[in-house]
Amino acid sequence: MNGGATCGQLRLFADLVRSGTALGARIDSGPSGTDVRLRRVPLGPVAVFGAGNFPLAFSVAGGDTASALAAGCPVVVKAHPAHPGTGEAVARAVTAAAARTGVPAGVFSLLVGRGHEVGLTLVGDPRIAAVGFTGSRTGGLALVAAGQARPVPIPVHAEMSAVNPVIMLDGALAEPEPAAEGYVASLTGGAGQFCTNPGLLLLPAGPAGDAFLATVARTLKAVEGQVMLTPDIARAYTEGVRRWAAVPGVREAARGTAGPGPYAPAPAVLTCDAATYTAHGDLSGEVFGAAGLVVRWSGTEELLRLLEGLEGQLTATLHGTDADRTAALRLLPVLEERAGRVLWGGWPTGVEVCHAMVHGGPWPATSSPATTSVGTLAVERWLRPVCYQSFPDALLPAELRTRAAAAG
Amino acid sequence: MNGGATCGQLRLFADLVRSGTALGARIDSGPSGTDVRLRRVPLGPVAVFGAGNFPLAFSVAGGDTASALAAGCPVVVKAHPAHPGTGEAVARAVTAAAARTGVPAGVFSLLVGRGHEVGLTLVGDPRIAAVGFTGSRTGGLALVAAGQARPVPIPVHAEMSAVNPVIMLDGALAEPEPAAEGYVASLTGGAGQFCTNPGLLLLPAGPAGDAFLATVARTLKAVEGQVMLTPDIARAYTEGVRRWAAVPGVREAARGTAGPGPYAPAPAVLTCDAATYTAHGDLSGEVFGAAGLVVRWSGTEELLRLLEGLEGQLTATLHGTDADRTAALRLLPVLEERAGRVLWGGWPTGVEVCHAMVHGGPWPATSSPATTSVGTLAVERWLRPVCYQSFPDALLPAELRTRAAAAG
Repeated sequence: MNGGATCGQLRLFADLVRSGTALGARIDSGPSGTDVRLRRVPLGPVAVFGAGNFPLAFSVAGGDTASALAAGCPVVVKAHPAHPGTGEAVARAVTAAAARTGVPAGVFSLLVGRGHEVGLTLVGDPRIAAVGFTGSRTGGLALVAAGQARPVPIPVHAEMSAVNPVIMLDGALAEPEPAAEGYVASLTGGAGQFCTNPGLLLLPAGPAGDAFLATVARTLKAVEGQVMLTPDIARAYTEGVRRWAAVPGVREAARGTAGPGPYAPAPAVLTCDAATYTAHGDLSGEVFGAAGLVVRWSGTEELLRLLEGLEGQLTATLHGTDADRTAALRLLPVLEERAGRVLWGGWPTGVEVCHAMVHGGPWPATSSPATTSVGTLAVERWLRPVCYQSFPDALLPAELRTRAAAAG
Repeated sequence: MNGGATCGQLRLFADLVRSGTALGARIDSGPSGTDVRLRRVPLGPVAVFGAGNFPLAFSVAGGDTASALAAGCPVVVKAHPAHPGTGEAVARAVTAAAARTGVPAGVFSLLVGRGHEVGLTLVGDPRIAAVGFTGSRTGGLALVAAGQARPVPIPVHAEMSAVNPVIMLDGALAEPEPAAEGYVASLTGGAGQFCTNPGLLLLPAGPAGDAFLATVARTLKAVEGQVMLTPDIARAYTEGVRRWAAVPGVREAARGTAGPGPYAPAPAVLTCDAATYTAHGDLSGEVFGAAGLVVRWSGTEELLRLLEGLEGQLTATLHGTDADRTAALRLLPVLEERAGRVLWGGWPTGVEVCHAMVHGGPWPATSSPATTSVGTLAVERWLRPVCYQSFPDALLPAELRTRAAAAG
């Protein structure tokens, strides 16, 4: 996501605030006639840990910052050490905008530091009321534990990892060319370092699937590896692909070429059958980068068992045609249980920032399946409801007053 | 809350389901024109631990059960050992109603057992997706820890304890009689065993406050203790009052009479000044039952400091008149930060079941400040959002179809 989209995201949340709907005001009376009114209030100062892979849209002025500010929460960003310069530049822009619009000092601030100490101190500070994190499972789990260990525990909304299964149904293989090209583009874009990267593709066994995989091999051969975000990430990628390839029953199905320098490893697609995948838990983990695992399945029953064995995911994608609808209707309840976003066709990379987006999902894709980190629904993760009973108009917050309500 | 109110609560949630609004459907398109639709889906089977003090409205067929069923979640209730007969009778009624209305077997069930084993096994079962609990802080924290320790952690919505501060502002003391009578009635109703019992009253120092307290003493003298829920609770009450009274600077201000038998201890009101209260952390804990602590304050600054030192609460109540509005406007932001429900006048006992009620609050009043256990907003604690991208109408859930949306 580029700078324009990042600004678009900030504007979307500004519109939400202007609309007055974000606080979910309710004006009601109880069974005994008591006047009862509800609004959501901000939790308090929020600590945001930006993602390493999205220096703009998921970092200093990214989704968590935008939604927390929209909720009325001050934000303290822990800059990601992979892009300190970008982080500082964005923070300067936010600070300048805040000064120009009369936002009080301290509503937005940036902390820097390479190790874990700054971050853990931040999460442990009694003045911090909630945390947003996008990154690795290790990092996310450490912050979740820190949030729970406080004398007053706080919510830690961590988006951690996912393999974002893509399920090819029979009808989708009639034209292997566009499907294979779409897959390779989604798998290798941004060196495969998107949270929604399609790391797992479930492909029918048989000649049509073979043809798809052959097309993938031809297409990927022409793709050059890109320089990854950090040397550590590049090393972990190469090691991860090697680990997959070492599992008995797994073979390499496609490979691109390495890019220039030591940190642009070649994209790779490996493949195995369903029994191999199920038998080796290691294959279900994420290899961060442009590495795809293609698991071949035979019959809807085997496919269902594969899906039922999956951990929580950010996304799950079905590719098919009208002829596949009966199968799709059997699979959908299983996918809804395991993912925050389901797609019919298309590819999961690329997150549309809008009112209906969900970028989240069941554990361990995130630590807080009830919320999203992208889209306007995200504002709710920084709010809690408060109810006002029998208050005179003059003491009520503006959005709950009878006069304002009648006028609005 | 009686049986009629319990049925009213079930009907309110039934109306919510019929209204079609509970799932928060959103139909939208993203910045690039992609069709994106959102609805909430049920988390899965919910374990409900009913409250010991409300065998009807907060137990087997109580708020958590009603809201979870409305969300589409099957419910497994762990019966409270203090009222096994009532629990079973209610469960039989629910099961009969389910059979008559064609609800599948297993959507509702009841487990019994006196120790912790049944409950902890239930929370640890991989098929359970969320937990609702109303009870003691010890019990709640144990379940929260069990929910977090699972391989796949789940949300545990525990409502634990609170002292529900009531703040008397100067204007409220002009007529001490009705205020004192209201206080004594709220403090002693149900043997003081309501979650919203006003355990802490903040009273201005000086003659007007003295007159209020003298009226409380006269009123309480005529009140007889009621038999408490269990022998253990009665013993803990007596011990708690003794512990408060032993703190230097605390004196007894009012006392009722003991009721018949060993488990109907006398209601009691103790009092101290702000310095004593602040210096002795033990005084801020809850004594479950009809025990009130009255803390005398001098000036708004001291009152503010007292309030800022409070833990999270279910409720906070302000008593005052028009003349107290300036003070009230200073106190309100502090109260909103610390309570799920704020009241202007009246008493916190008695929870109006409606769309705008919040029965919840910051830690440690509850383990999940972002939700409520009473009122229709409670349905959200059992749901999570799922987004559907580029789906044909025929594959969408009914509430997200274009045709249904256009017709509705």
